[in-house]
Amino acid sequence: MIKNDIELLKRGVEEIIPVDEFEKKLAKSEKENRPLVVKAGFDPTAPDIHLGHAVLLRKMRHFQQMGHTVVFLIGDFTGMIGDPSMRSVTRKALTREEVLENAETYKRQVFKILDREKTKVAFNSEWCGAMTFTDVLSLTAKYNVARMLERDDFDKRYKGGVPITILEFLYPLVQGYDSVALKADIELGGTDQKFNLLVGRDLQREYGQEPQVIMTVPLLVGLDGVQKMSKSLHNYVGINESPREIFGKVMSISDGLMFLYFDLVTDVPKREIEAFQKGMADGSVHPRDVKVRLAKEICSMFHDPAAADGAEAEFNRIFVKKDTPDEIPEYAVPGEEKESGKIWLAKAMVLAGLAGSNGEARRLLKGGGVYIDGVRVESEDYEITFPADLVVKVGKRRFVRIIG
Amino acid sequence: MIKNDIELLKRGVEEIIPVDEFEKKLAKSEKENRPLVVKAGFDPTAPDIHLGHAVLLRKMRHFQQMGHTVVFLIGDFTGMIGDPSMRSVTRKALTREEVLENAETYKRQVFKILDREKTKVAFNSEWCGAMTFTDVLSLTAKYNVARMLERDDFDKRYKGGVPITILEFLYPLVQGYDSVALKADIELGGTDQKFNLLVGRDLQREYGQEPQVIMTVPLLVGLDGVQKMSKSLHNYVGINESPREIFGKVMSISDGLMFLYFDLVTDVPKREIEAFQKGMADGSVHPRDVKVRLAKEICSMFHDPAAADGAEAEFNRIFVKKDTPDEIPEYAVPGEEKESGKIWLAKAMVLAGLAGSNGEARRLLKGGGVYIDGVRVESEDYEITFPADLVVKVGKRRFVRIIG
Repeated sequence: MIKNDIELLKRGVEEIIPVDEFEKKLAKSEKENRPLVVKAGFDPTAPDIHLGHAVLLRKMRHFQQMGHTVVFLIGDFTGMIGDPSMRSVTRKALTREEVLENAETYKRQVFKILDREKTKVAFNSEWCGAMTFTDVLSLTAKYNVARMLERDDFDKRYKGGVPITILEFLYPLVQGYDSVALKADIELGGTDQKFNLLVGRDLQREYGQEPQVIMTVPLLVGLDGVQKMSKSLHNYVGINESPREIFGKVMSISDGLMFLYFDLVTDVPKREIEAFQKGMADGSVHPRDVKVRLAKEICSMFHDPAAADGAEAEFNRIFVKKDTPDEIPEYAVPGEEKESGKIWLAKAMVLAGLAGSNGEARRLLKGGGVYIDGVRVESEDYEITFPADLVVKVGKRRFVRIIG
Repeated sequence: MIKNDIELLKRGVEEIIPVDEFEKKLAKSEKENRPLVVKAGFDPTAPDIHLGHAVLLRKMRHFQQMGHTVVFLIGDFTGMIGDPSMRSVTRKALTREEVLENAETYKRQVFKILDREKTKVAFNSEWCGAMTFTDVLSLTAKYNVARMLERDDFDKRYKGGVPITILEFLYPLVQGYDSVALKADIELGGTDQKFNLLVGRDLQREYGQEPQVIMTVPLLVGLDGVQKMSKSLHNYVGINESPREIFGKVMSISDGLMFLYFDLVTDVPKREIEAFQKGMADGSVHPRDVKVRLAKEICSMFHDPAAADGAEAEFNRIFVKKDTPDEIPEYAVPGEEKESGKIWLAKAMVLAGLAGSNGEARRLLKGGGVYIDGVRVESEDYEITFPADLVVKVGKRRFVRIIG
């Protein structure tokens, strides 16, 4: 039984090309009760799933929830080819055994998000391995050089005199042909895959099929808030990490990033998210509480709600209580400072003896070395709202309980 | 027993790349008495051999004469692939049966020039047909896009916005890989094949082989003296034409073209050719006699010397005697005109009543409608040398025998 929720499908998606065909396909699938074939390709060389992959996997999950068929396609065929021209380690040739091993690793991870029963795991070596040179030539007759050179990275390399092997022109054709082999209705991928996904559309048309609709999802920004999430940049949340690790990592992100993550990796309804933002703006909601909610959502996705609760308790014990010395000096904010209902944190730090001057306090805040109840303070302008009973930590060892 | 004649091998060749490697390979082959593998590729779609192909075939023959192994390679693999982007009819897909039939047609023809015993006929489907997609990807990893786009026609089409399919990038790689499969020492081809021949050099290096030397031969100009010889332009001498047809066609070419043909499609020694040129310049040799020699050489190449003699006799009978009416008006050059030993043909035509004025005579000559003893006169300045007894024909029906 197909029941589409178009709003949910579109949530967090960067582009749908073309939107009208997308809506037509959905309507038709519902009317005819025919599940759509939704394809997403995965590199066989990088089986460590992290929160960045979750954006895509969750989108696949949405389609599953609505009754569609999701193909988790492992690009093992091209993965078994080395390319000397590519410096990236992801392009070193894999053996058949490594591919199968990586596939198992993938499966152990992705079914935390995908519905195992509704997922078809496929390997493109299945059809590519059976292709003869003649088949390849027929395939290459269906796409032209100028269009291939329009791909951003090819264009840059060609103009910059950086060699592109002809092999690299075949990769997008292989990926596109996968859509032909699978008769894909929809292909999902990161925004960096847009060109390749469009090749699939073109090739399906050449092979007499109805072209797939493509949907791109943004690349998730890593915990640092700057670079895209990736294992090699150490700014990721791994799917196999413990609830405690996940909780701690999510609690470390900035407030801005927090809302991006809410949007891309949770199903928390838009109106709830908007309520958080409003509450934080008028001071009625503490950012830390919002972040706890996000951390629990992500913990639940990779583990379960009970594990998320446990992680929260653990976090509080360690960072807010246990990590804090038994005897903490207290500083009570004087009455005159409390009149406005709040106090600038930097000022409170000076009054409490945690900094010698407002300037020093600012520098400490800017350097990211100031925590309130175990959560790093993002803004130099942070204000403490009264009534308050919180532990301010500067660096590793200096604590003051501020009461006001 | 290898015995190289470097001068003969270089004759009529446009480029040898690189010359020093060429000479080294020849010297080594002689020293080690190891025949070189000399490859030349032929399109399986155009089995009508004509004098234009003879330039290349004769060069192959030279290598055979010196003891080397010649591979007559039929590019049947690529011939069996159609390419919708190419307008040329030579690119329509062939069936296996058509390829074999064409190969037989080739054999019936080329052994008029090549030594059957010393020719290895090969089909590239033998190795290409066995290549998997993986092999193809490995091959395409060994060449890059920018270099491919340097090929003249690709460069023009790319810059001109004329689509190039990716398939077309694979053709030169297939041709180059043929050299790898054959371990070719030398590859011969037309000047239009230079780029593809060089790809073979590059690929052999990539596959760890000593790169082949490439030799290009010029494309033969057709009977019209303007465009390259080709069947479709009807300016060719076919290998399967009768001695009589061949003889007649050769007799119709211009004096300038005659020497080009001597150089490219006969083994008449250089010094003899130079003697003809000198004789024609000082009037001691009649161009018609030189052309007869060329016609007989070409007849002998495609048939045999006896057939050439027969063709000459036939030609004389038909064009010089029989084609001429029984009763021809005679014109005797007056004594005063004969004093200088010669007369300008245009003037003689006026005197004999074949033209109303020198101007008209010139126009007739320029238009190519004036024949002496059945051979078209090329130059408006042509002079008749005395003593003379010849039939001047203007157009189809007007004849005058000029005696002087």
